[in-house]
Amino acid sequence: MAQFFPELKEDFKRLLKAAAGKKIAVAGHMRPDGDCISSQFALADILRECGAEEVVCLNQNPLPYLYEHFAYGSKLQSAAEFCDDSFEIVTVDCADYKRTNLELCSRFPSPLGCIDHHATNNTYAKINIIDTRASATAELIAGMAFDAGLKISKENANRLYMGIVMDTRQFTTSSVRTQTFEVATALVKSGADAAWVAVELYQRERFEKMKLLALYLQSMTMHFDGRVCVGVLPADAYTSTGAEKADSDGLVDYARAVNGVEIAVLLEALPNGVKGSLRGKGPQYMVNDLAAKFGGGGHMAAAGFTAEGYDLNTLYPKMLSLIEEHLLNLDKLNSKI
Amino acid sequence: MAQFFPELKEDFKRLLKAAAGKKIAVAGHMRPDGDCISSQFALADILRECGAEEVVCLNQNPLPYLYEHFAYGSKLQSAAEFCDDSFEIVTVDCADYKRTNLELCSRFPSPLGCIDHHATNNTYAKINIIDTRASATAELIAGMAFDAGLKISKENANRLYMGIVMDTRQFTTSSVRTQTFEVATALVKSGADAAWVAVELYQRERFEKMKLLALYLQSMTMHFDGRVCVGVLPADAYTSTGAEKADSDGLVDYARAVNGVEIAVLLEALPNGVKGSLRGKGPQYMVNDLAAKFGGGGHMAAAGFTAEGYDLNTLYPKMLSLIEEHLLNLDKLNSKI
Repeated sequence: MAQFFPELKEDFKRLLKAAAGKKIAVAGHMRPDGDCISSQFALADILRECGAEEVVCLNQNPLPYLYEHFAYGSKLQSAAEFCDDSFEIVTVDCADYKRTNLELCSRFPSPLGCIDHHATNNTYAKINIIDTRASATAELIAGMAFDAGLKISKENANRLYMGIVMDTRQFTTSSVRTQTFEVATALVKSGADAAWVAVELYQRERFEKMKLLALYLQSMTMHFDGRVCVGVLPADAYTSTGAEKADSDGLVDYARAVNGVEIAVLLEALPNGVKGSLRGKGPQYMVNDLAAKFGGGGHMAAAGFTAEGYDLNTLYPKMLSLIEEHLLNLDKLNSKI
Repeated sequence: MAQFFPELKEDFKRLLKAAAGKKIAVAGHMRPDGDCISSQFALADILRECGAEEVVCLNQNPLPYLYEHFAYGSKLQSAAEFCDDSFEIVTVDCADYKRTNLELCSRFPSPLGCIDHHATNNTYAKINIIDTRASATAELIAGMAFDAGLKISKENANRLYMGIVMDTRQFTTSSVRTQTFEVATALVKSGADAAWVAVELYQRERFEKMKLLALYLQSMTMHFDGRVCVGVLPADAYTSTGAEKADSDGLVDYARAVNGVEIAVLLEALPNGVKGSLRGKGPQYMVNDLAAKFGGGGHMAAAGFTAEGYDLNTLYPKMLSLIEEHLLNLDKLNSKI
């Protein structure tokens, strides 16, 4: 049978061997996403089954509501409160060790292993297993486990499938390749229930988030012949809807989804500033350059900033004039090519 | 190599052979969806490559805006205006021949072939190729083409992948099975670009639709301890937002997506009645029974009706009391089990 990650086979074996008989803490990055959570729980099970004496999962933040049904009874311990020095650390989905928890880093300065798919990973562990072609760390862990002939339980199949779905936004990102689907196929064969995972991820929305989305959609305005779409959340948006700060995640994607829109913006009024989220319809829009003008940053298609000392009335027009200039430069660049 | 639809291999060969040297019109159902459109264009290419003298695609309705980039220069002719009697008809995605166009049916009473995945298909053609396990007609056509060793062009890979994505709502329906992913994998290997398809399908939304969605979300109200979520579109919703009737498609899914909601409702004021759309969080909610009370119907998890002689003020409370009774019956049923 074909292997998913043949180049990583020996390193993965080495990690399993190194963990055998030891106490292992699988740490993920702060504010864990679906890929991180699924990778933590699944790898913990795998290490346990391959002979680790004891395995715990650590995170600076608690298990997000969205992923609670993927725990299947497993616990996510607080990295800040973890105090057993007899453990060794293995990280997942962490490009930088600091993204787990600073105290953890100083107490366990030399992590045993690291499994990740981020291009920016700085290989900080004794055994680093990095593959930037993988759409998700979950794809990497699943693929290596299949390659090693390990049995994937139905629970871990659901978890790892969920990690891939979250990091590829339902198979829609440019990181999706043939192997992404091959690993997904193998996970479904192992018992992953695509429909159940989707209900968990996409049919457990907070009612208050829907009301916040309504406010954002209603405020959406087109600029520059429909190339730019901007929506705002005024300071009372949260109190009037009952929504939480985290409920604004993903709202800006609705502006980007509009036909013809090249750059999408969400501006949120803060007590002493404005938070901005920027999206480009592709990396060619380099919205990180725009975010940098307000001291922010991010990726070429997704970036953000927090601009202190502004309010919506002062930031909105400034943002528009910066975007106008940015589009002009992009147009020049494209006409030159 | 394993076959996707081994039982259908001979029938598919028979259809290709029967079409060779003939003039074939590939007809789809009225108001075509992505599965229908992708199946029509892809099958037309396949029949052409396998020796049909001439192949056209027919539909009662024009090519929807959403799918125009999947035509790649192919045309969708008007079934109503098609007047060449020397053609033979092959249908795709049509459970009932009448769903193509009534005039077509009377002029070509004996269609040559039919490829479909609907359980309700009444096998009206000379060669009927039906497999209800397929998540989409596109999965069926792709699988049979691969089985037959035919080369799938990049264009047809994108089309057929799109058909699967649309009919499975991005791999989230209960019709998704291992083979759905295996066919998707084979299509991606043949050149389907999952990210491009997703931009086409999900990032070309009409701005006016977003404004209509805002109105719907804002109107959403919870009932019966959050088990039921109802939203309405008043008569002026379309004029105030500039939206079209088709823009209300899918709105009710936002109500169903709310955590805890079991039954979701969209009520639209019409000049002389109310249009209702009902969704259940699973088939166990049998919303078709509710729709039937107003002369409508549909599936167990998705149904609809048009109730004449009502307005929102009269229909809304009646709907609520019917749903209350329905939930009570469901609860009784479940406690008995």
